[in-house]
Amino acid sequence: MVIIMKHNATAQEIANAMKRVQELGFEPHPIIGEERTIIGVVGDERPVEPDVFDILDGVERTVRVLHPFKLASREFHPEGSVVRVNGTTLGTNQVIIMAGPCSIESREQLFEAAHAVQEAGATILRAGAYKPRTSPYSFQGMGLKGLELLKEVRDTLHLPTITEVMAPQEVALVAQYTDILQIGARNMQNFALLQAVGQIQKPVLLKRGMMSTIEELLMAAEYILSNGNARVMLCERGIRTYETATRNTFDINAIPVLKALTHLPVIADPSHGTGRWDLVAPIARGAVAAGADGLIIEVHPHPAHAMSDGAQSLKPEKFAQLVQEVKRVAAAVGRSA
Amino acid sequence: MVIIMKHNATAQEIANAMKRVQELGFEPHPIIGEERTIIGVVGDERPVEPDVFDILDGVERTVRVLHPFKLASREFHPEGSVVRVNGTTLGTNQVIIMAGPCSIESREQLFEAAHAVQEAGATILRAGAYKPRTSPYSFQGMGLKGLELLKEVRDTLHLPTITEVMAPQEVALVAQYTDILQIGARNMQNFALLQAVGQIQKPVLLKRGMMSTIEELLMAAEYILSNGNARVMLCERGIRTYETATRNTFDINAIPVLKALTHLPVIADPSHGTGRWDLVAPIARGAVAAGADGLIIEVHPHPAHAMSDGAQSLKPEKFAQLVQEVKRVAAAVGRSA
Amino acid sequence: MVIIMKHNATAQEIANAMKRVQELGFEPHPIIGEERTIIGVVGDERPVEPDVFDILDGVERTVRVLHPFKLASREFHPEGSVVRVNGTTLGTNQVIIMAGPCSIESREQLFEAAHAVQEAGATILRAGAYKPRTSPYSFQGMGLKGLELLKEVRDTLHLPTITEVMAPQEVALVAQYTDILQIGARNMQNFALLQAVGQIQKPVLLKRGMMSTIEELLMAAEYILSNGNARVMLCERGIRTYETATRNTFDINAIPVLKALTHLPVIADPSHGTGRWDLVAPIARGAVAAGADGLIIEVHPHPAHAMSDGAQSLKPEKFAQLVQEVKRVAAAVGRSA
Amino acid sequence: MVIIMKHNATAQEIANAMKRVQELGFEPHPIIGEERTIIGVVGDERPVEPDVFDILDGVERTVRVLHPFKLASREFHPEGSVVRVNGTTLGTNQVIIMAGPCSIESREQLFEAAHAVQEAGATILRAGAYKPRTSPYSFQGMGLKGLELLKEVRDTLHLPTITEVMAPQEVALVAQYTDILQIGARNMQNFALLQAVGQIQKPVLLKRGMMSTIEELLMAAEYILSNGNARVMLCERGIRTYETATRNTFDINAIPVLKALTHLPVIADPSHGTGRWDLVAPIARGAVAAGADGLIIEVHPHPAHAMSDGAQSLKPEKFAQLVQEVKRVAAAVGRSA
Repeated sequence: MVIIMKHNATAQEIANAMKRVQELGFEPHPIIGEERTIIGVVGDERPVEPDVFDILDGVERTVRVLHPFKLASREFHPEGSVVRVNGTTLGTNQVIIMAGPCSIESREQLFEAAHAVQEAGATILRAGAYKPRTSPYSFQGMGLKGLELLKEVRDTLHLPTITEVMAPQEVALVAQYTDILQIGARNMQNFALLQAVGQIQKPVLLKRGMMSTIEELLMAAEYILSNGNARVMLCERGIRTYETATRNTFDINAIPVLKALTHLPVIADPSHGTGRWDLVAPIARGAVAAGADGLIIEVHPHPAHAMSDGAQSLKPEKFAQLVQEVKRVAAAVGRSA
Repeated sequence: MVIIMKHNATAQEIANAMKRVQELGFEPHPIIGEERTIIGVVGDERPVEPDVFDILDGVERTVRVLHPFKLASREFHPEGSVVRVNGTTLGTNQVIIMAGPCSIESREQLFEAAHAVQEAGATILRAGAYKPRTSPYSFQGMGLKGLELLKEVRDTLHLPTITEVMAPQEVALVAQYTDILQIGARNMQNFALLQAVGQIQKPVLLKRGMMSTIEELLMAAEYILSNGNARVMLCERGIRTYETATRNTFDINAIPVLKALTHLPVIADPSHGTGRWDLVAPIARGAVAAGADGLIIEVHPHPAHAMSDGAQSLKPEKFAQLVQEVKRVAAAVGRSA
Repeated sequence: MVIIMKHNATAQEIANAMKRVQELGFEPHPIIGEERTIIGVVGDERPVEPDVFDILDGVERTVRVLHPFKLASREFHPEGSVVRVNGTTLGTNQVIIMAGPCSIESREQLFEAAHAVQEAGATILRAGAYKPRTSPYSFQGMGLKGLELLKEVRDTLHLPTITEVMAPQEVALVAQYTDILQIGARNMQNFALLQAVGQIQKPVLLKRGMMSTIEELLMAAEYILSNGNARVMLCERGIRTYETATRNTFDINAIPVLKALTHLPVIADPSHGTGRWDLVAPIARGAVAAGADGLIIEVHPHPAHAMSDGAQSLKPEKFAQLVQEVKRVAAAVGRSA
Repeated sequence: MVIIMKHNATAQEIANAMKRVQELGFEPHPIIGEERTIIGVVGDERPVEPDVFDILDGVERTVRVLHPFKLASREFHPEGSVVRVNGTTLGTNQVIIMAGPCSIESREQLFEAAHAVQEAGATILRAGAYKPRTSPYSFQGMGLKGLELLKEVRDTLHLPTITEVMAPQEVALVAQYTDILQIGARNMQNFALLQAVGQIQKPVLLKRGMMSTIEELLMAAEYILSNGNARVMLCERGIRTYETATRNTFDINAIPVLKALTHLPVIADPSHGTGRWDLVAPIARGAVAAGADGLIIEVHPHPAHAMSDGAQSLKPEKFAQLVQEVKRVAAAVGRSA
């Protein structure tokens, strides 16, 4: 860290700050400037927060030097991680497409959706049994019955699956029915849940919170990694901004920023990233052109009758067209899809 | 709801949209404008999402008419709710002050803090045993040992307490040790947790997520209320914006907006709302002047040695001064404190 | 518009609101719901603001039905506009690349940059003579001398140019030296300037304000169009959000949203959209994959010695590589570049 | 500044960065950490941007140490500035209230409003003759005719006035008719306009841009101050956030932050800060409780017939009540009003 003293900090205050640096096990390196003194703090600053210095008399503010994450960092793991999921691999040169309905609604609906996305070229099926809903009056998902249907479809079609888990006590159960566990945007900083999925051996797709920074996303990944589960994938799904023309603002910048900072695969979710089905294809193409390792897309056989997220769900034929477009863009950037 | 058709919607598309309105159990009322047709949808729209109409051909967008919350709404409960907590009441003419350290760190620290805030005029003690931390490498709280200390202090000083609960499976345990359960900002949309605290009879302080709208806060309260627990208080604790001079932007507008929309008491947290101890007193005064029913403030006997949130913690003497200032402002707006 | 009355609005209040609708020349269509009455307002609502109804007793809020822009709208101009600039055309199937240094710094620097971008494949030269700078102590641009250099390079290399104009009284002057006038993000709602460029016949590139919605961008375009200048192009250049990993958040969603709402060409600026040279190429590829009609990119022969925006400027060889990548992506989406 | 080198920066890259520091006239002070080297840059960094170092090979990022503003800074001007306006002083212990209609609409309307606000206790009249409007189809203000009416009212009632100026070429004219020039939020970074008002001797109220940081506001003030005009006042008027319940989010934190950073008076605008008349009084009280030196409030004799901003305008009797409330709050924090 670097401690920036106030303009009018006294010699005593500077001495006290340096003493505190030493007490905490670091080495202080003062630099006397024309208007201010700064103190370089040498040592592994990660376990310490800037607060411990900010609160001292005469200190204006403290700036981190190191990234607060380590296991997620590319600095210590220069090669990209490859996550193996039941025959499919994520984080390779191939762009992986996950698709399926927002919610599992019935056996028929799920089979219809799964057939359609598989035929169109998706290699992983997404579908939710437990749904985080803003309103307690909205459909909350089929629960266990939905998980059973998901497993049936998975085994019948030989299609790996991803589904969301919402509470620590449900992790073990959900893990029995699916190949990938999804942590939703609203739970990105549900630390009890992060610890729980960190303690099992199952791939995890961690979605960025709708108002979380890239650094916070990596710190959330660090929770999972530091609990022992190395198979983590990150997902950009749009952030909340002042713009109301779209449900969220898809942060395409996050894709190359994450690829530079971390070795974990980066997946893009243009369905939540826009909230409008007619914008999904252009943003999917854009995400792949910018370097995404995969896509996760909502597809429903009959969006007008979907029990959730109908407005952002693609019909199967639109999805098939999207897959073809994405393949061409992937090829243009030297990848397959 | 109101369905706004596209400029070039066909008669067939309009007819289909009206048919869908009827299928879902509502009554359609079309209005043919010069450039567009709109369709008024009559009935209780709460269980339905605008998505069901947005996805139809020829529809541009759908606008809600009713607030999606009902139990939390002042429309159906014009009188303000009063929450009784072990001898203290919140939501009356008296402004209630809760204060104490961010984390419980030791028996000595907790007693020292509790004595100080009680003497200064606080009537409820806040202190955390389970701490949601951005980094897995930061102090995570004393856990059960902390709860035991909290209960000891509470019983010794006859000071009601509030502490955070982070996971559904811990609700019953934490409820045994404290008078008020706090749901932290990062868990405002942890629906499993909201349901769990909705199913016990214990006052709950629900903090607004740093990324949440006022409407989402009220919907989160609706989860608790609709599960059977009526003793809910809301807390404005600052939202995330582009401004970096402060940790969060305290949304003072939310105070009168909430007082108009809901009957639930509204508490202000100027410690998290600013992130800087030197800003806590002016924002506390401002919040009370704007109509807050209470304050929750971080106070630590030795902020420079706090294990969390040191930079926003007040020393006891600064807190005592704040209480006096707040009393004067409360009186100026016709309240006591 | 649709006026949504309060839950407890009286018959008198509803009658008054309807009377006010008529007074303003509209036709009121009330719909009596179970919990609330709404009033459809039929007529061209554009010149009126929702405020006129919001302020009435018993009114909760008023919702617009029509888009407030008309000349910029694709509804009334379904074909995309093509802007002709001295031999080049924007808004066709060909993706146009504008490139050059942030600031004009010297004759030598400008020629070197212009040669480099022209050779790499750019067809329009960008370079600033008047620079809007956050600090009064920063380099403010070469002014008239810069314009003269720009014209010399333009005439020598037969390369059309774009440069920024910052004040209404300078529009006529700047227009003599360049082919396209640029309105910078900070001036997007400088209405005096918009009127001034609306009154001459010269193509204008209007950059989205860093704090502006897509609708506000279209209303700013409407200022230019309604003053008589039809040759307007829009530019997405990143918006301000809470994320600090990048200088701005490039709003890729805005590209397909704008293409749907307006007939005006849409240009992407990945240099300002990211603020970091290492992110420019992936975002440029993403923008073209999502449907942008052109790119504007900062290129400097020696970024480390640039007098402004060095951190986001590409070296000529990196830019040449970007052009090749963009050509491949453009081909993948059925366009040329 | 402090240059933070990359984890894997080479000795050569560190040496090059230090050389560049020297070339630019600064003194480099390297600190070799365990994971990274940082370089302290000693000297007045204000004229230089972090970009000049960020672009160098091996540099991760550069952090400013000094505030980029100087004339506006309290560090160099510890006493608060007092701005004298025709008999009234701003920046003293007295809270000053400016009030009046958004737009000047007629002689009658302006006199009626002016009488009402003067009688209620306002000491400065606000009213706009040139109006920045999002839509070119909205009322743009009465212009010169409005200025003449403003002057007539001012001279008749002996009430100092404030009105907005929107273009550099109109500064001299507007200055003849009013006591204070207002720079609106949309023009906060209209640098040509800032320079123009910096070159005359007339008090200026500079409104914060709706998505500008506190630091940018102070840099905008620095433009005016460095051009020679010392009579600058700042105005917090709400910022743009994701929250849609209010038109803007009033950033009350900005009041004590500004009071700490600068010696310039700080005025609060709760009308724009909320956008709803029913929220104006609580936010006005809150702003004064938090330390604002004055208020600027929209009052219209007949808000339902206002030509702009009706929804946020107070009726005279509501305003009179607000003044009484504000006086009590001001007294509670040791000030008069």
